[in-house]
Amino acid sequence: MTHSSTIHESLTAVFQVRDVSAGRRPELAVLLWQRALDPQQGTWSLPGGKLRADEDLDTSAARQLAEKVDVRELSHLEQLSVFSAPDRVPGPRRIASAYLGLVPMTADPRLPDDTAWHPLSALPVTSFDHGTVLEHARNRLAAKLSYTNIAFGLAPERFAMSTLREIYCAALGYDVDTTNLQRVLSRRTVITPTGATAAPGRSGGRPAALYRFTDSELRVTDEFAALRPRS
Amino acid sequence: MTHSSTIHESLTAVFQVRDVSAGRRPELAVLLWQRALDPQQGTWSLPGGKLRADEDLDTSAARQLAEKVDVRELSHLEQLSVFSAPDRVPGPRRIASAYLGLVPMTADPRLPDDTAWHPLSALPVTSFDHGTVLEHARNRLAAKLSYTNIAFGLAPERFAMSTLREIYCAALGYDVDTTNLQRVLSRRTVITPTGATAAPGRSGGRPAALYRFTDSELRVTDEFAALRPRS
Repeated sequence: MTHSSTIHESLTAVFQVRDVSAGRRPELAVLLWQRALDPQQGTWSLPGGKLRADEDLDTSAARQLAEKVDVRELSHLEQLSVFSAPDRVPGPRRIASAYLGLVPMTADPRLPDDTAWHPLSALPVTSFDHGTVLEHARNRLAAKLSYTNIAFGLAPERFAMSTLREIYCAALGYDVDTTNLQRVLSRRTVITPTGATAAPGRSGGRPAALYRFTDSELRVTDEFAALRPRS
Repeated sequence: MTHSSTIHESLTAVFQVRDVSAGRRPELAVLLWQRALDPQQGTWSLPGGKLRADEDLDTSAARQLAEKVDVRELSHLEQLSVFSAPDRVPGPRRIASAYLGLVPMTADPRLPDDTAWHPLSALPVTSFDHGTVLEHARNRLAAKLSYTNIAFGLAPERFAMSTLREIYCAALGYDVDTTNLQRVLSRRTVITPTGATAAPGRSGGRPAALYRFTDSELRVTDEFAALRPRS
């Protein structure tokens, strides 16, 4: 027995590491829009919407997102799991394909009036199972930081190691040592020195070396490289 | 505009490393069933089927699979991507959630008459986009072998390193050195010595030490362990 009126939708958790309040460290924030109408009027939702008959899910997720944020600001978009519990939303069944989207720290996209960035440390009341989807996306991001180069999607084009450390701390939710981070990422050739240095900061001192991500597409920074055939 | 008659289905690529022909190395094989009826009568399909109104996708995938193979033989089942191209199958739109399933080398599940294991090196003609789904699943398996302990799903409960090497070679599709494999997996505590040894084989020599997988659930064998907070 299948439900002929089942709707398929995309839901995207878009993350950015942002300066949330002056004098505090940057935090991981997510893009949410507030529902003007029932059901669940006033709660905050992940951007997304119904799959059209003439598009696939990736196209649909990007299209839905474009209504909330200029997609040129998106540095990465990938499919996560499907949320398919029969009762996840009231009314006709909706099956949701979840996506993870990333925006670089330096971007400042224009947002519609109903939409805002919310730090994960102070989330508003979320709609339906969107809180669960969001948590799943955040866990996937944290896991991928450990075995891929996915931080390219959160970092500025060029950055000092102190900035990259702030990004990792915010996205992982725990403290990371700058020296360790530089050592591990350099050894895996995830980051590359640009040869340039940053203008000295307020605190003075030696100008910081600037790095960039070696690749701007997702790759697994393979711990088993030793097993690979020599190419 | 949404298609009210859209069907959601699961499709599972079940893999096992098997002795395909006498005197040859074991190979990675996939479970396929042959379509007795049109459309595409005679082609070979991944097990799966329609999502019911009262179940979620994980439940549905396991249920569909149970018609082809005793699910107690499955050591691992995980969701992969969704295949949603509007024209992927003829007739009403079908959105497919792909799954990856693993069966240990030592299991020999009873199969229905229409179902058989096929080595990936000699696939028959596959149905619709099932060849693409299968390739995607195989690539995911190979990638996960490099950053997770997923080989637990393919290995016997206890194994000599020479057996584990055969499993990795078959699943990765290239040659792997036994000493390297043991060194990398031991350092990551992916495998643990059991203290027991195998009965001497036909070739005689020193009895081989037997190992087991430390965990029987998927975990990322984190290359960035150095970044983790001390617990």
